[in-house]
Amino acid sequence: MEPYYKFRKGSFYIEEVEGRKIVEKFGTPVYVYSHSFLKNQINRIKNAFSNLPVKICFSVKSNSNISILKIMKANGLGADIVSEGELRRALIAGFSPSDIVFAGVGKKEEEIEFAVKKNIFCFNVENEEELDIIEKFGKKYGKKVVVNLRLNLDIDVDTHHYIKTSKSENKFGIDIDISERILKKKFNFVEIKGIHFHLGSQIKEVSPYIKAIEKVREFCKKNEFNLEILDIGGGFGIPYKEEDRIQSVEEFGKEIYQTLKDLNLKTLIIEPGRFIVGNAGVLITKVLYVKHKHTKNFIIVDAGMNDLIRPSLYGSYHLIYPLKLKNGKKIKFDIVGPICETGDYLGKDREFPEDIKRNDFLVVMSAGAYGFSMSSNYNTRLRIPEVLVTGKNVKLIRKRETYSYLFKLEKM
Amino acid sequence: MEPYYKFRKGSFYIEEVEGRKIVEKFGTPVYVYSHSFLKNQINRIKNAFSNLPVKICFSVKSNSNISILKIMKANGLGADIVSEGELRRALIAGFSPSDIVFAGVGKKEEEIEFAVKKNIFCFNVENEEELDIIEKFGKKYGKKVVVNLRLNLDIDVDTHHYIKTSKSENKFGIDIDISERILKKKFNFVEIKGIHFHLGSQIKEVSPYIKAIEKVREFCKKNEFNLEILDIGGGFGIPYKEEDRIQSVEEFGKEIYQTLKDLNLKTLIIEPGRFIVGNAGVLITKVLYVKHKHTKNFIIVDAGMNDLIRPSLYGSYHLIYPLKLKNGKKIKFDIVGPICETGDYLGKDREFPEDIKRNDFLVVMSAGAYGFSMSSNYNTRLRIPEVLVTGKNVKLIRKRETYSYLFKLEKM
Repeated sequence: MEPYYKFRKGSFYIEEVEGRKIVEKFGTPVYVYSHSFLKNQINRIKNAFSNLPVKICFSVKSNSNISILKIMKANGLGADIVSEGELRRALIAGFSPSDIVFAGVGKKEEEIEFAVKKNIFCFNVENEEELDIIEKFGKKYGKKVVVNLRLNLDIDVDTHHYIKTSKSENKFGIDIDISERILKKKFNFVEIKGIHFHLGSQIKEVSPYIKAIEKVREFCKKNEFNLEILDIGGGFGIPYKEEDRIQSVEEFGKEIYQTLKDLNLKTLIIEPGRFIVGNAGVLITKVLYVKHKHTKNFIIVDAGMNDLIRPSLYGSYHLIYPLKLKNGKKIKFDIVGPICETGDYLGKDREFPEDIKRNDFLVVMSAGAYGFSMSSNYNTRLRIPEVLVTGKNVKLIRKRETYSYLFKLEKM
Repeated sequence: MEPYYKFRKGSFYIEEVEGRKIVEKFGTPVYVYSHSFLKNQINRIKNAFSNLPVKICFSVKSNSNISILKIMKANGLGADIVSEGELRRALIAGFSPSDIVFAGVGKKEEEIEFAVKKNIFCFNVENEEELDIIEKFGKKYGKKVVVNLRLNLDIDVDTHHYIKTSKSENKFGIDIDISERILKKKFNFVEIKGIHFHLGSQIKEVSPYIKAIEKVREFCKKNEFNLEILDIGGGFGIPYKEEDRIQSVEEFGKEIYQTLKDLNLKTLIIEPGRFIVGNAGVLITKVLYVKHKHTKNFIIVDAGMNDLIRPSLYGSYHLIYPLKLKNGKKIKFDIVGPICETGDYLGKDREFPEDIKRNDFLVVMSAGAYGFSMSSNYNTRLRIPEVLVTGKNVKLIRKRETYSYLFKLEKM
């Protein structure tokens, strides 16, 4: 059986007839998201944490399309944002400011001011200077501003080094002793109500969270800190292939409940992004050329690293299957994009029917998170459309870019 | 002496007074390019190859700003393009189609048709199927279309594995035996007049080019191919730090002349990008926070991996200096961006004055090539402006993006 076939059961995928309709209407490459898959993931995570006072804030950076955000909002989620741009997106999508959490290691003054004015729920603060700025704008607008301190707990997790974020030598978080000193400082407009940690991304098991929560508990006890809000970040992993072993979100919820239940929290914040949207999206791409070289075979497709940079940047694995499934002899191909860099590839050494050919279509799975949101115009390529499938209905949620749009800011 | 101080002599840099004026006018982060540095590099490469029938085609992907392209055009260069978008840019900038060369491993049918219609100088062809498509459109428009075959010469060069492009196992080029078969094929509208190779990027010495030319010579002799056009690609390296040892373009020109002079070429095409623009641009960024952790010190700046991805993607080194030079004690910092990823950094373990502080400015050198052209909106960050310095004159050549521009295609 095809390696992707079994995997597809747990992820959004596209069948031939449906796929052909989409590419006929919207062209390729195109991102396609599933409304029902999104809803299902949202419900799973809501249920998994339902016995805790949870605020589930969708990580906007994973997929920031306004229509996707509207789905999160409609299903009762909040938003985890990292910039003024993401805050604006969340507001356009209809989130109440009281459901918005602002994280990030480099918040600009004007971003902080904008968020204070908008009355967001809280800031996750990354250093002392940031507190002074929040205090300043709290004073300016006569508002108490709720903050959580992002602690650096020096916890290692098993993931790509670019997306581990809680080691001592990473840029994130505040060292414990500095946090203790901060707790003794007096603020008039800053209210430190909680603790935040974020361990990284694509984490496969709950144990680092449990370890982190225990460290937070010790920290609060030692400093007699009344913990009202605990923000345990996101990072819940998803399978990218059949053999990926990842604890289920239900297990995450159960274990975290056991660790937290006596803490009497007012609010537990979690910030899933990839968990909700990662396996809810695919990228459909067209075969431009098939190239047999003596050392390797290549399928050259019309989607490149500018459309999906995860393989190039992180060495990420995405399952890829032909839209039209075929039996018969398979040989190995590298699936590469049209960009003039050897680093521009989508998959390596994948088995495909040996008669795969020009104008066939391939589907790149698990492309819903950190796909479009990281895309660029490198090689002056237009960014591609995003469409949303709801039952039989297919809706364009971002138009393909045009050259006049692209060049507009350069015509001086 | 500061490590960057000596280096700056051979690159475009910004002094404090000048830099302050620019950031006051345009904000940060901002890309700044030097008109005179560009001209100087153009003249160097023109002189280096002046005794050959050279067509110097600027590699548009390295920096595709239309105003930068206009400078290339005004100084007599042609354009090396890899997409319809780049062709459109080149035409807007005023290049004659007869000075445009179309390369790339994944040209779409509609791109080929567009270029045939526009009468570009030639195509560098990457596989057999592409020839059939060119033949088809040549026939459709009744035009003879000049092509060069991109040979796979299986030559290794000393550079990052993502940007070596001439190894047998890379996606680029046509194997020798297939090329020989192609030469025997009969076309009515395709005229194979030349050979193309491209070894990679940031190549430090001329010897791989010499080796490649020798291989091309053997190939032509064996196949009795009358070589009218030879396109040796780009890839000429530039220093990113003082200790980088790179053969000068003058030496490149001299050695290539010696190897080529008896070949009786009609046209030698070279495709410099980084060589011309790499050291002609800087990125000015503002210090948002200074963070001392027990294990490391961080300068958090307002430019991130979405603005300049080279350090994250290739591990590239860019010299960084404070706009206001200071004496006194120095300590080591990582220079990191505001993006929520550990991979978001601009420099590691760099010595900076220990009293560097919020609202100071840093200048990231050698950011003219593959800087803005690879930038994205990740974290919903607006793409930054580009300005051009011509003597005392500073001109905006790309406006900073706005949120309404950014969200426009999602408002359905």
